[in-house]
Amino acid sequence: GKSSLLNAITRQQVSIVAPDAGTTTDPVEKPMELLPLGPVLFIDTAGLDDVGALGELRVKKTLEAFDRTDLAILVAEGGQWGEFEEQILAELASRQTPVVVAFNKADLAEPPPDRLKALRARACPSVRTCAKEGQGLQELREALIAAAPEGFIENPAIVGDLVGPGELAVLVVPIDKAAPKGRLILPQVQAIRDLLDSDAMCLVVKERELRAGLARLVRPPKLVVTDSQAFLKVAADTPAEVPLTSFSILFSRFKGDLVAQVEGALAIDDLKAGDRVLIA
Amino acid sequence: GKSSLLNAITRQQVSIVAPDAGTTTDPVEKPMELLPLGPVLFIDTAGLDDVGALGELRVKKTLEAFDRTDLAILVAEGGQWGEFEEQILAELASRQTPVVVAFNKADLAEPPPDRLKALRARACPSVRTCAKEGQGLQELREALIAAAPEGFIENPAIVGDLVGPGELAVLVVPIDKAAPKGRLILPQVQAIRDLLDSDAMCLVVKERELRAGLARLVRPPKLVVTDSQAFLKVAADTPAEVPLTSFSILFSRFKGDLVAQVEGALAIDDLKAGDRVLIA
Repeated sequence: GKSSLLNAITRQQVSIVAPDAGTTTDPVEKPMELLPLGPVLFIDTAGLDDVGALGELRVKKTLEAFDRTDLAILVAEGGQWGEFEEQILAELASRQTPVVVAFNKADLAEPPPDRLKALRARACPSVRTCAKEGQGLQELREALIAAAPEGFIENPAIVGDLVGPGELAVLVVPIDKAAPKGRLILPQVQAIRDLLDSDAMCLVVKERELRAGLARLVRPPKLVVTDSQAFLKVAADTPAEVPLTSFSILFSRFKGDLVAQVEGALAIDDLKAGDRVLIA
Repeated sequence: GKSSLLNAITRQQVSIVAPDAGTTTDPVEKPMELLPLGPVLFIDTAGLDDVGALGELRVKKTLEAFDRTDLAILVAEGGQWGEFEEQILAELASRQTPVVVAFNKADLAEPPPDRLKALRARACPSVRTCAKEGQGLQELREALIAAAPEGFIENPAIVGDLVGPGELAVLVVPIDKAAPKGRLILPQVQAIRDLLDSDAMCLVVKERELRAGLARLVRPPKLVVTDSQAFLKVAADTPAEVPLTSFSILFSRFKGDLVAQVEGALAIDDLKAGDRVLIA
């Protein structure tokens, strides 16, 4: 049931579907784009009612997958709902993970009305699907988007707000031996995209070409962003009046609490010999 | 055996490892970076000697995985080599897929000398590994890199050769609703990286900001590259003396036979009513 539904949502054959229950052993991971959420990783797990030595291993793997889950789909087969489904729902509730219940194989049986009522009482959304016939998939996608944690749809800006529409940032991207072949690392790509989303533009250069790049501009950029490893060289080549920062600082602001971090850094000056520091 | 070795190479726990043979059902896929090859996808398959209804499905999945394999690791357990290993080697040979044989569990048994001799006679490289102890992994990585098809290490340029060191290209990247959230599509990222690898630089803009971007430059760029969907608008905003192309054309040159494609396009003019066209 689960595997068929995952195949239908991702429109790909991602795992073996056999008529026997219990075919899934390893959690099968399937990355896909679910707009407007963005990149998501579907993890198709085994259940929690597995027995035997291999069964225990499967249950452990399933619970590990639960720990990594931001949003769960509980697949219940048509009319069936029992201890097993309640156990999964309880596990997810203890983790405060939002859940969408999919009553799959809706062509074979209707979900029990008392169960639908109980789910509504818990504010747990449910949809009827039939993976085989391709029914209810759009409803399921919409329910997932509605149930997703808020931050998953609207993200704060990475750098675009510091540059502004029609303005230009210079991104300094050193290429070292550890760089992935033929591509850029994700924070660099995200910064470029964020600038474009803000109607800004960017000049992308290696640290060695920064001087030549700045010389190509009619007027200085609004901001220079560099990889931390090139900070000193880039600082030397950046005009004093142009603000300079690093991808690390931008992503500290994006993902963390930059103000607290700056206060923490400033507090270092007040430390006296023998003070104890908690680094958490 | 195979799963342990895959975990050791990828330094991650990617699939259930149980003491019983036959634990692997679905081929487990693990993307990783294997420099200097670049991004690779490891596919951990079941064997070819599986029996029963589910067994047949596994064999089918394994053969499908073989079809997608550019480079194979045949994992033989220490001293063991038989019909099974020969069958896999024959399957791979029929596909002209390069193979590296890993004699795993080398702590338990030595590979049979006549087998090593036979593999050498076929010019098939082999290494001894012990996934548990972490032995032979570096040798295995090196053997894989040596056995990889030539084009996997050195790639032709995408765009850098058209721009040149110290020069600048403008990349026009429209953002439509189908774009992946918060990122760029791979050909755009690859073009940026290729320019940096060629000591060139690039200005990245949306089609709406192209005019403003060009106005920021002291002198015109060496090349403008646009997404095909914006070609007409970009052509109107690009100075007549600046060459203009699209990501699609660049990647036709990179991955295909651009000259043949251009000749094909030119041949359209010679077609007469009733001519038959083979589109292959």
